[in-house]
Amino acid sequence: MNLPELKNRIENIRTDMETEGIDALLITDPKNLTYLTGIGTGQALITQEDAMLWVKDLYMKIHEDLYFNEKYEFDVREYEKDAIKKKFREFKNNSKSKLKNFRIENIGIENPTHARYNKLMELTGEFNLNLKETNIVMARRAVKSEYEIEFLKKSAKIAIAGMKKAYEVISDGVGEIREIDAVAEIEYEIRKLGSDAPPFGEGMLFASGSGGANIHGAGGNKKISAGDLVVVDLGARYNKYYSDMTRTIPAGDLNSGSGENAGSEKKDMLEFVENLELETIDLLEVGMKASEIHDLVCEKIEKKGYKFYHSTGHGVGLNIHELPNLGPGSVDVLQEGMVFTIEPGIYIPGKFGVRFEDIVLLKKTGIEILTR
Amino acid sequence: MNLPELKNRIENIRTDMETEGIDALLITDPKNLTYLTGIGTGQALITQEDAMLWVKDLYMKIHEDLYFNEKYEFDVREYEKDAIKKKFREFKNNSKSKLKNFRIENIGIENPTHARYNKLMELTGEFNLNLKETNIVMARRAVKSEYEIEFLKKSAKIAIAGMKKAYEVISDGVGEIREIDAVAEIEYEIRKLGSDAPPFGEGMLFASGSGGANIHGAGGNKKISAGDLVVVDLGARYNKYYSDMTRTIPAGDLNSGSGENAGSEKKDMLEFVENLELETIDLLEVGMKASEIHDLVCEKIEKKGYKFYHSTGHGVGLNIHELPNLGPGSVDVLQEGMVFTIEPGIYIPGKFGVRFEDIVLLKKTGIEILTR
Repeated sequence: MNLPELKNRIENIRTDMETEGIDALLITDPKNLTYLTGIGTGQALITQEDAMLWVKDLYMKIHEDLYFNEKYEFDVREYEKDAIKKKFREFKNNSKSKLKNFRIENIGIENPTHARYNKLMELTGEFNLNLKETNIVMARRAVKSEYEIEFLKKSAKIAIAGMKKAYEVISDGVGEIREIDAVAEIEYEIRKLGSDAPPFGEGMLFASGSGGANIHGAGGNKKISAGDLVVVDLGARYNKYYSDMTRTIPAGDLNSGSGENAGSEKKDMLEFVENLELETIDLLEVGMKASEIHDLVCEKIEKKGYKFYHSTGHGVGLNIHELPNLGPGSVDVLQEGMVFTIEPGIYIPGKFGVRFEDIVLLKKTGIEILTR
Repeated sequence: MNLPELKNRIENIRTDMETEGIDALLITDPKNLTYLTGIGTGQALITQEDAMLWVKDLYMKIHEDLYFNEKYEFDVREYEKDAIKKKFREFKNNSKSKLKNFRIENIGIENPTHARYNKLMELTGEFNLNLKETNIVMARRAVKSEYEIEFLKKSAKIAIAGMKKAYEVISDGVGEIREIDAVAEIEYEIRKLGSDAPPFGEGMLFASGSGGANIHGAGGNKKISAGDLVVVDLGARYNKYYSDMTRTIPAGDLNSGSGENAGSEKKDMLEFVENLELETIDLLEVGMKASEIHDLVCEKIEKKGYKFYHSTGHGVGLNIHELPNLGPGSVDVLQEGMVFTIEPGIYIPGKFGVRFEDIVLLKKTGIEILTR
């Protein structure tokens, strides 16, 4: 792990804590822990004065190179029952000392369940502390550093190679290969190229023919038929950073399908959706509202006579889906350094689906497509 | 989807709702939706009188064979804004009619985030309804039907074949192959055998040598060395049902490692942990407390001079981790039809780790190990 990078991230979080009036931030989300501590385990508590990390004693020993490095920002302790409670008691005692800098009143927590929120309310109440929900870390994670962009680019390169394999498997296997066997080959390629996770939690999406109308269609026992459009949605992960891309691949001759104009309808739709994707990417600029982009895509799909059933895009990083959200009613504004997908799609039940998706890096003066 | 099976599940849920005093149960968890509706999308609301399912119009058309089957329990509607609100208003109006059977007062919801809980509180408050957290569906899912057990067994069979591949890859690759390449081969085998998902969300676990001391160690760039113990934790998924198993595999001659008695220490530990696993399985009986099992395992590991760092086991089904919880302080009681793991482990930082894990099906008169 790059310690100056971690230090920067913590400094940014402290800036945001000050802006939001959060005196201590409790972090338990594994990916947020990975982002700030370099290791996705334990519980962390960050104030302007210090940064604590509690882990199982096993991990004290496993990560001691990191934890006992003098440049490591966190004071690492073995987790014990009531570790957080003790720290809260300390906050209360410090507040009595009336040293303003040490006064902790507002505790920030990340998207807790209702049950956890209630537990923490009890705990903070005991020490006259306030509980405040915040998404400071998720929001910061939306803007990538140079360090992160390097990994995202490598991850995208593996996705591109995986997609190349998908084209080959489909072209070689028309009429022969089952969807699920195609998936096995493509995921194998992605893993062999060094992806440190399979594409997505439940595997890549691979849906041929009418199956493509199901947005989340995964590969089944059906064989790929000539004339099918195949929606292939895959990704990789490099040094913990995901990638995500979709192509809709024609299997054999599109005119082989049923219906008189079936072939030309499919070709038209392929062209329309891919153009829409690229046009949308061309529009992206720092300062735009994410919802505005989404509304535009909806409008264009509706003008074509269809409905848009999902979001236009999402951030990609330590999670496959993270901020910014390019969907209806999003409050996100596009910022320099954001890395996110643009993925319009049209789905026609009983017939086919078409989706094209790329990851873009938004720069001050334009965009860079990472998956082309 | 088997419609009589779905009907049974809904009947069971209605029984539990009555016991818990829940008049209407709102279901949004994708796996709970899969369990009750056969399809993991939308929002469902179950009362004693009816069962509603709201989905995007796209899915109305995609699943119409299911949705418009007269034996399908749910009344499927296209999702529209305020669909839930309208239903709540209906509840309020019905309650005025004073027909006791139609009176809805308590709305059950599943483990919501605090933010969602607040939104729902506002909504239910408007119609004088009470909100009640419940885990009825998760609890029912812990006990498997014959129908589910068939899939779990098939899933376990793929895991066994994947593990066979792991033994081969390690035996053929000692000193040559990197962990991550071994993972690629094993996951490929599992997928080729028809697993409908990769093993686990971020891939299988594969940790050789000192890496094995990290409970969640995934394959890295390190080569497998002679004398290594390799912790291999993998699974499959068949018709949406997961499996999960772990073996600790010796790479080459265990005496090749460093330290005078290194080989015998490793052999002793392999034997100890595997015996502990099998002894624990032998103890399992309907009616036992899950926490009791866990405490016993802790005790035996501590007597050996080590500490137990994780839970003894977890249920396996539509989720890789579900109820019952065989961990500290669990309130679960072992019931006939439960399918869960037993997975003791010992982790020695800087040296190695050893874990053995199998899935068992608890029967009235004993247990069946699904992964041996």
